Formats: sequence, C-alpha cells, structure tokens
Amino acid sequence: MTPEAKPLGEGSQADVGGNADLENLLEGVLTGNRRALARALTIVENGGPEARWLLKRLHPRAGRAHIVGITGAPGVGKSTLVNALAREYRNRERRVAIVAVDPSSPFTGGALLGDRVRMRDLAGDTGVFIRSMASRGSLGGLARATGDVTTVLDAAGFEVILVETVGAGQVEVDIAKEAHTTIVIEVPGMGDEVQSIKAGLFEIADIFVVNKADYPNAERVELALKMMLDMSKPREGWRPPILKTVATRYEGIAELADTIEAHRAHLQATTGWHRRVHQRAQEEFYRILRRQLVENLFASLPPGRFEEMLDRIVAREIDPYTAAQELIAESERGE
Amino acid sequence: MTPEAKPLGEGSQADVGGNADLENLLEGVLTGNRRALARALTIVENGGPEARWLLKRLHPRAGRAHIVGITGAPGVGKSTLVNALAREYRNRERRVAIVAVDPSSPFTGGALLGDRVRMRDLAGDTGVFIRSMASRGSLGGLARATGDVTTVLDAAGFEVILVETVGAGQVEVDIAKEAHTTIVIEVPGMGDEVQSIKAGLFEIADIFVVNKADYPNAERVELALKMMLDMSKPREGWRPPILKTVATRYEGIAELADTIEAHRAHLQATTGWHRRVHQRAQEEFYRILRRQLVENLFASLPPGRFEEMLDRIVAREIDPYTAAQELIAESERGE
Repeated sequence: MTPEAKPLGEGSQADVGGNADLENLLEGVLTGNRRALARALTIVENGGPEARWLLKRLHPRAGRAHIVGITGAPGVGKSTLVNALAREYRNRERRVAIVAVDPSSPFTGGALLGDRVRMRDLAGDTGVFIRSMASRGSLGGLARATGDVTTVLDAAGFEVILVETVGAGQVEVDIAKEAHTTIVIEVPGMGDEVQSIKAGLFEIADIFVVNKADYPNAERVELALKMMLDMSKPREGWRPPILKTVATRYEGIAELADTIEAHRAHLQATTGWHRRVHQRAQEEFYRILRRQLVENLFASLPPGRFEEMLDRIVAREIDPYTAAQELIAESERGE
Repeated sequence: MTPEAKPLGEGSQADVGGNADLENLLEGVLTGNRRALARALTIVENGGPEARWLLKRLHPRAGRAHIVGITGAPGVGKSTLVNALAREYRNRERRVAIVAVDPSSPFTGGALLGDRVRMRDLAGDTGVFIRSMASRGSLGGLARATGDVTTVLDAAGFEVILVETVGAGQVEVDIAKEAHTTIVIEVPGMGDEVQSIKAGLFEIADIFVVNKADYPNAERVELALKMMLDMSKPREGWRPPILKTVATRYEGIAELADTIEAHRAHLQATTGWHRRVHQRAQEEFYRILRRQLVENLFASLPPGRFEEMLDRIVAREIDPYTAAQELIAESERGE
C-alpha cells in the first residue's frame, strides 16, 4: 500500500486545535528561526493534521518567491550548478532556498548525505536554506510534498527557491513543470543524442544550460539544441536561450542568474506568470481535494470494511468498479 | 490540468446502458478477435464510462495470467530481450502479450513507431499481441492505464503478459512492482556503478539479467550484483538469480523463461503469489475509489464552482485546505 493509500496513515481530517507548540513553530518560521523552519518542513513532508494546520496559516504569506526548477539527466552536474547559482544569488543579497529532490532509491534513501555535502559550501549563511527530499516510493506523494515544502519556504521569506530534480521520470517532469522558470541542463559527450529529448524534458525548458562547456563537443550540443529550437515554436513568446557554463569554475553563472531574471520579467510582463501560478494552484488544490475525499470516505466506513471488500475483489466475487460504487453508497447512507 | 484532474474529462460516473456495440466488442475480446481487442484496449486506455463498462465485465475473467515486469535503464536492450522472450514463449506454445510502456516524451509520443518495429519480428502469429503505451503526462494516469490494459489482455486469455518499462522514475518502479515477477536488466560497460541501484530498481528485482553478456566487463557486473545480493536478505525466501543473456543472438533466453517459471512456482508454493495479487488489487481498488469520489464531487457541484474557488486560492483569499473542506461540505449539503 502506498503511503497515500493508507486509510488512516495521515490522521483524521479534523484540524488540530489551538496547539501552543504549533503556534510557536509558526511564529518561528515567520521570524526566520532556522530550527523552526527545519521542523516545520519535516512536519509538512510527513503530512497529517499538523501539516495542514501549518499550511493553512502559511498559505496567505506565500506567493512571492520565484520558483526555479533545475533538471537534467544524472551526471550533468546539477548539484554543482545549483550551489553555484545559490552563491550568485547570495552575492546579489537575495535570500535563496534549495530543495533537492533526491533521485536515490525509495528504499535506501540518500537525502541526509546530500545535505551535508552541500552544507560545506554554503554553511553559516542564514540567507541560504537547503533541504533534501528523498523519494517516498509513492506516486504523487513526492510532488505533493515538494509543493508543500516550497509553500513553507516561500512563506518564510526566501525570494528564490531552486528546486533540483533528476530528469528521469514523469514525477520529476511534473515537479519541474510546477516551477515558474525551468532550467534544463545538458552536457557534451553523453553520446550523439541530446539527453533532454530522450528524457521528455525538451518541451518544459525555459532556459537551456550546456554545463561542462569546457569539454569537447560542447558546441555540438549547443548546435543540436539550436536546431531543435528552430523547429519548435516558442511558448508564450519566449525562445529558450542556451547558455554555456562550467559550474565547477563558476563560469557563466552570473549570466544564468541574469537570464533567470529576464525570464521572470518576461513572464510578469505577459500573461505567463499568472498562467503558471494558476496551473500550480490548480494541481495543488486538486491533490488536496482528492486526499480529503478519500480520508472522509475511510473515516465514515467501519474499520475493516475496505479490506473486506478488497478480499472479495481478490476472490473475483466483485469487480473493483462495482465495489467502489458500493463503498461510496454505504458511506453516503452513513451505514 | 492533468487528464486525471479534468472535472468532466472522463464522462459521468453513470454506467452506460445496454449498448449493442459494446456487447459485441466484449464478445470479440473474449473470443480472440484481434481487432476487437485492439479497440477495447484503446477504450480502456482512454478511460470513461465505456472503459468501466468493459472492465466490470472483463474483471471476473481475468486473474490467470502471469504478469512479468521487465525494466532497466535506457540502452540495456529491453525491447530485444522482450521480443526474444515472447518468441521463446511461443515456442512453448504459450499465448503471450507484450505491453511496452513507452519512455518517450508525453509531448512527442513514440508508441506507434514502437508497434511497427516490433511487429516485423512476430507478425502474423495470433498467439502474440503487442501494445505500446505512451506516457500521458499525468501522475498516476499511466499506472492506472497499464493495470487496466493487463486486465483486458488477461481476460482475453493471454497466459503471460510481459510489461516492459524503462526503469527511470518512480512511476515506472510502481508499474514494475505490480507484476508477479520483476526482471531487472543490467549491461556491462555503463560505468562503474550498477545502474539498477542508481535507478532504485535493485530492491524490486526477482531476477537479474546481465544482457549483452558478450561485452567486456560482464563478469564484473555479475560479481557486483552477487556481492550486493550477499549483503541483502532474500525476500519471500527467494534469492534473485543472476542470468546472462545476449538477446540479439537469443542466448540465455530459454534459461530466462525457465527461471521465470521457477519464480512463479516458488510464489505459488508460498504465500508470495497471494500477497502480490492482493497488493495489486489494493492499489487498483484504491485508484478507482479515489477517481470515483472526485467524479462524484464534480458532478454535484455547479459548473464553474471549482474554478471560482481556484481563483480565490490564486488570489490568496483562501488557502486550498479550507477551500477543499468548503467544496466537500457544499457537495454534501447538495447545494
């Protein structure tokens, strides 16, 4: 059973009452207390009534951050580029958060290690906050958690939120699509193909970065991207620029930050910004609605009723469509 | 908005009435008509009331097929191996279906091409059916469709269903997990790392295949897998065997088919088979329940009510948690 499928795994739908501890935590998040922020993020990642309590109150404070998705195949140097970009934002005195969606197995987890490796580079700077999230092994669960985590960081006053995902699957594409600006990283020398095409990332890019641009064939990758862009029509009046970087040497990073700003300005000058905010809110609202409906249903059924029906489905005494109709009807009759 | 999120995208929840066309289609599927089967699969992939009508009736006939998931990183030779395996099953006079979950972009689609490339090899054999499915760009939508497609093929009498997915993301891992037997393919020479570890596939393997075993370093990959298996504990009393194949030359394929049979026999001799069937049914039932709840909600709300609430969320006049509670309450009061 996926975590999302757990009938009672997320606690009841009821809000938690006036909890002094949560009130303090909320206050801490809004006043820049890092330990409060870390705890709030853990609560929000785990879901449940406390998470909802916090998110309800943080939601009105969020909506100002620029969310930048950064994705690419494994090995393109995402983390190095993201760290370099965070530094660049710090030089510009912008408060920046990094959310690294960890590509590691749902079973082994590698999120903590990631935190430490990164921290060395930016440690001690209170204008930076770094959060690694491991995959939870549930469809959609990670996308939900990522959205909630950015809401908290946004409400906590981070002006730029860099969401780093490995571009390797639909979930990651969906997470990247929720950003205002999406950066897709390519590198030279990973065979003839442009990797982002293969991974389904080409269409979601607002900005292409050819990282490791000091390697041979960097021009070939750039040329291939250019040709493909020539064949596609621009979205929202924006042709994705192609930038070259050597993230390990900090080359091209200032230009990248400038281009991200230019994209933001373009979106805000057109309907693009609103369209993306709307899209993001719609996905989030729909996810929350769906989850609450399921929780309500399970709360109204007698314990074991779902499992009883499931056993009949396994025995092929009833099909799952009819079984679902029956459970919903029972719940509505309040049996 | 994802297809799953479309309020009215899947039609109303009502069953479709006595439809002679659908009755004929159902009859065709059950009597081995290939055109009827292809049409039924398209209906089922698209979802909606006709899909439900068919699935309700096909569900009692399904449950006999052995579902074999086959996954691995791009470039390991999945399609060649799957084709070779299908041939081997045909030599053994087993009816076999291939479901290829296409790794191509949700935007460009590549499913049709895949069908043709494969068909050349096995064309004209009525004991084989091949279906390519493109990614739909929706979280969970592909997993739903894959489950429904295997139900149809199972009911149509295919004894072995090979579900091929690219092992690159959580969705694919989830699809692979729904199989009775999961095969993870490795190849030599893709760097030092064992790819399946990186992709989160190591833990879901019931059988490892080192394909392209005539390449240098094949022994190294085998050794690395052995060492990792030595460190993990067997699941359900089964230690995943490691087989070597050269799929292009048909080497090792008979042994692979034997090992798949051995795994099935092992599962059936223990509680493993039932546990997997139960797990699969649970995921499916939960998905169906969730979808019906959402459809019921949208059906009971006045047109535009969701969008109205969404606009208030975007304007940050209301948070999405409170908004969801309000919509559900309205729907329950029958406003």
